Amino acid sequence: MLIELLRQQVLEANLEIVRRCLVLYTFGNASGFSPEEGLVAIKPSGVPFEKLRPEDMVVTDLAGKIVDGTLRPSSDLATHLEIYRHFPGVLGVVHTHSGHATAFAQARMEIPCFGTTHADYFYGSVPLTAPLTEAEIASEYELNTGKAIVRRFEGIDPLTRPGVLVSSHGPFAWGASPAKAAMNAVLLEEIARIASITLSINPQAQAIGKALHDEHFLRKHGPGASYGQG
Amino acid sequence: MLIELLRQQVLEANLEIVRRCLVLYTFGNASGFSPEEGLVAIKPSGVPFEKLRPEDMVVTDLAGKIVDGTLRPSSDLATHLEIYRHFPGVLGVVHTHSGHATAFAQARMEIPCFGTTHADYFYGSVPLTAPLTEAEIASEYELNTGKAIVRRFEGIDPLTRPGVLVSSHGPFAWGASPAKAAMNAVLLEEIARIASITLSINPQAQAIGKALHDEHFLRKHGPGASYGQG
Amino acid sequence: MLIELLRQQVLEANLEIVRRCLVLYTFGNASGFSPEEGLVAIKPSGVPFEKLRPEDMVVTDLAGKIVDGTLRPSSDLATHLEIYRHFPGVLGVVHTHSGHATAFAQARMEIPCFGTTHADYFYGSVPLTAPLTEAEIASEYELNTGKAIVRRFEGIDPLTRPGVLVSSHGPFAWGASPAKAAMNAVLLEEIARIASITLSINPQAQAIGKALHDEHFLRKHGPGASYGQG
Amino acid sequence: MLIELLRQQVLEANLEIVRRCLVLYTFGNASGFSPEEGLVAIKPSGVPFEKLRPEDMVVTDLAGKIVDGTLRPSSDLATHLEIYRHFPGVLGVVHTHSGHATAFAQARMEIPCFGTTHADYFYGSVPLTAPLTEAEIASEYELNTGKAIVRRFEGIDPLTRPGVLVSSHGPFAWGASPAKAAMNAVLLEEIARIASITLSINPQAQAIGKALHDEHFLRKHGPGASYGQG
Repeated sequence: MLIELLRQQVLEANLEIVRRCLVLYTFGNASGFSPEEGLVAIKPSGVPFEKLRPEDMVVTDLAGKIVDGTLRPSSDLATHLEIYRHFPGVLGVVHTHSGHATAFAQARMEIPCFGTTHADYFYGSVPLTAPLTEAEIASEYELNTGKAIVRRFEGIDPLTRPGVLVSSHGPFAWGASPAKAAMNAVLLEEIARIASITLSINPQAQAIGKALHDEHFLRKHGPGASYGQG
Repeated sequence: MLIELLRQQVLEANLEIVRRCLVLYTFGNASGFSPEEGLVAIKPSGVPFEKLRPEDMVVTDLAGKIVDGTLRPSSDLATHLEIYRHFPGVLGVVHTHSGHATAFAQARMEIPCFGTTHADYFYGSVPLTAPLTEAEIASEYELNTGKAIVRRFEGIDPLTRPGVLVSSHGPFAWGASPAKAAMNAVLLEEIARIASITLSINPQAQAIGKALHDEHFLRKHGPGASYGQG
Repeated sequence: MLIELLRQQVLEANLEIVRRCLVLYTFGNASGFSPEEGLVAIKPSGVPFEKLRPEDMVVTDLAGKIVDGTLRPSSDLATHLEIYRHFPGVLGVVHTHSGHATAFAQARMEIPCFGTTHADYFYGSVPLTAPLTEAEIASEYELNTGKAIVRRFEGIDPLTRPGVLVSSHGPFAWGASPAKAAMNAVLLEEIARIASITLSINPQAQAIGKALHDEHFLRKHGPGASYGQG
Repeated sequence: MLIELLRQQVLEANLEIVRRCLVLYTFGNASGFSPEEGLVAIKPSGVPFEKLRPEDMVVTDLAGKIVDGTLRPSSDLATHLEIYRHFPGVLGVVHTHSGHATAFAQARMEIPCFGTTHADYFYGSVPLTAPLTEAEIASEYELNTGKAIVRRFEGIDPLTRPGVLVSSHGPFAWGASPAKAAMNAVLLEEIARIASITLSINPQAQAIGKALHDEHFLRKHGPGASYGQG
C-alpha cells in the first residue's frame, strides 16, 4: 500500500470519529497499518482535528521509529503498535474517550451482551483490561497499556470482539481497516449507551443466551454470513 | 398500488428513520405492503441509507419470493411478512435499534403507560414478546421472531398498539402506511425515552388509570376522535 | 393589539418550541391573549408546525367561541382559556411534552428547587396538579385540566412560578407574552433535565434554603432586580 | 495588552460556550484579565449572546470600577474579580450552568477522579465550595461566592484544577487565557457527564489511584509534559 493512501485512510478515520461526535478537542486518535511495508500511520499529538492534513499523519515502523513526518506522533502510539504486533488482521486502531464506553471503563465493568445490537458486532462481552500496576504506570505506560490489552485477549480472536475497555481509561477499537476501526468505535459507544440505559431501567438485566448470541453474530460474520449483499 | 409508488413510500420511510436519528449505519429497515397486489417492498440488506434509490427496494410476495429487484432483501424480511400476514390493516412495518426502546427490550420489560404522551398513541403498555426457544432461534429465526410478535398480540388489535419490543432485541413498529409505521417508530422511541427518565426519577412510578388512558387514546383515534382537522 | 400582531406572536412562539426541540410532530401548542380585545389566538389542532402560517392561528374569545379562522383550534384550548381567565398578567401559554418535564409529571413529583438555575426562574418548586377524578376526565377534560392548574395555584402568584406539571401528562408554561411563555417552557425543560441528573447522582439531594432562593429570584425579578440592562 | 484585544478574546470565549452548548439564553459569562493594565473585560448582564459585539464587553479595574463601556457588567462580576485577585496566572474565567456540572453542584458532591479523561485536566477531584451562610448571601453575595471559591482552594494550585463547583449553583472554570477558561468549562462539563454515567452504571465506582493520576496529568502539564507538539 502506498504511504499516501495509508495516510489518507488514517486521516479519514480521524475525521470520522469527530463527525460521529466521539471526540472533544484533541481527544482520541486513529491509526492504520500496512503489513506489506510494516508501516503505521497515526495522528500527530495534540493537533486540532480540523487542521489535519494527510501529510501530518506520522509514519513509523512497528517498533515506533519515525520513518516519515515532521510532527510528534500521538502519545498513545506505543499502545497502537502493541496491538498491531499481536493482533493479526488488525489494520486499523481507534482510541476515543467517548462518553458511555469511557463510563464503563471508569466503572470498571465489562459490557455484558444485553441484546442483539451488541451480539451483531461483539461475540461476547466487551472485555475490560486488568488495572496496571504502579510499576507498569511508572515506566512505558503506553506500551504497558497495549500489553494489558493483549493479555486480556489471550484465547480470544480480536476480530470477534473488535474493541476493549482499558480500565479507568477508555475504549480502544480496531478492525480490518482504519475505516472499520472507526466504525467499531462508533458501534462500541452505541452499545455502551444502550447498555447504560438498560441498567438504569433494570439493574438486574441479564446477558442473552448463547443461542441468540450465536445466531446474530454468525448472521453477520464468518463463512455462513447471510447479511448484506454477499 | 403501483409498485413504483410503493417503493417510493418505502424508501421515504427508510430515510425518515435516519433523519430522526433512529438508526446507525445500516441498522434498521422499513417495508410497505400493497394488499391489492399482495406485494411487499423492503429495504435491501446492508446497503447504506444514503445510497438507497427507489429501485433498490426489493419486491416480494407475501411468501417472501422475490418478484422484482436485483438485491438481497433485508435479513428481517420474514419478520415483516409474518406481521403483514396476520395484522389486517397494517401496510407498513419499521424495525430499528433505537436506543431507549432497545434498552427496554434488553431489560425485558414492557413499557408501562406512565402518561398521556404514551396514551395518545399506545392503548396499553408497549408489549414485550416472550423469549424465543433455542429451537426457534436455530431454525427460521426471523420467521419465529414474527410468530412471537403475532402470539403476543393474541386478543389485541395491533392498530391500537402500533409497536412491540422483541425480547433482547429491539422494537418493531407498524401502521396503516410506511410513513405511519416510521412515525410510530419515532413515537415509540420518545415514549421509551421519557419512560426511562420517569423510572430514573421514581423507580416506583405507576401506570395511569383507565379513565385517563381512554380519554387520550380515544381523543386521537377511533370514531369519536376530536383531534386534528377532522 | 391588532389580531394580526397577536397571530404573528403566537406563530413565533409555536416555532420557537420546535427550534428548541421541545416538540415532536404536532405535540404541543402555544397561544397568546390580548386583554384589550379579550381575544386569544392559538395553534390549530394537528397541523404540522412547518406548515403553519399566521392566518392559521385560530382566534377565539375567552369563552372559546371562534371569532376568526377556518381551522379547528388545538384540543387543549379550554386549558389555555382557563389559565387566561384566572391568571392576571399572563398573556401567553405554552404546552409541550418535553421529555424531562414530562417525566417528572409522569413520576408525579414536583421539581424541588435544587439550585440557583431553578431559583432564577421559579420561586419555589415547580408545582404538580392533583390527579383528575374519573368524573373530571369523563366530561370537559381539558377545562378540568385548567381548573386543576388554577386550584394548584391558590395562594401562589402565577408569575412567580411560570409553569406547572399536569399530573401524568406534562408541562404548561406561561408568561407576560407568548415569547416569554415559550422561553419559560424551554427553561422548565432545562430545570427538569438538570434536576433529573441531580437525582441520579444523589437520590437524597435536598432543595436549597430560602435565603439563597430569595437572593437569586429577586436578583432577576421584582422591584429590586439588578440583572440585565435595567 | 490592548483593551481591544482583550475585549475580542472575551467575546470569543463567550461565543465559544454558546457554540459548545453550555449555555441557554443569557446564562453564563466569560471574562478576561490583563495583568499589565490591571483591567478585566466581562460580558454585559442579560444581553443575548448573538447580539454581542466586542465593544459591549464592559471593562473594569480589579476593584470593579467601570473604566470603559456603557453597559452594566454581568451580575457575577464580583466573583470573577475575586478569582483574579487571588489566583495568580489566571487570565480568564468562565461561568456556566452546564447541565451535568450543575447537577453535581446541586447534588453537593465533588466529582471524584474516576478516570484518565478527568486526570488529564484536573489534578484531583473537582472541588465543591462550602455553602454560603445566610449572612454571606444577604450581603455581597457575588463577592462572597468568590471568597468561598478562594477558601476552597487554600493549599491547591488553581492551575492544577481549573474549575470548581459552587454549592447549589454551578461551575466556574478558569485558565491562562479566556480561550483556555472556555475550554476548561467544556472539559468540566464532559468530565461531569461521564462521571454521572459512571455512577449510574456503578454507584460504588472508586476514584483512580495516585500513580495513574500523576501519569496522566503530568503527561499533559508541567515541565516534563510529553503531549502535543512541544
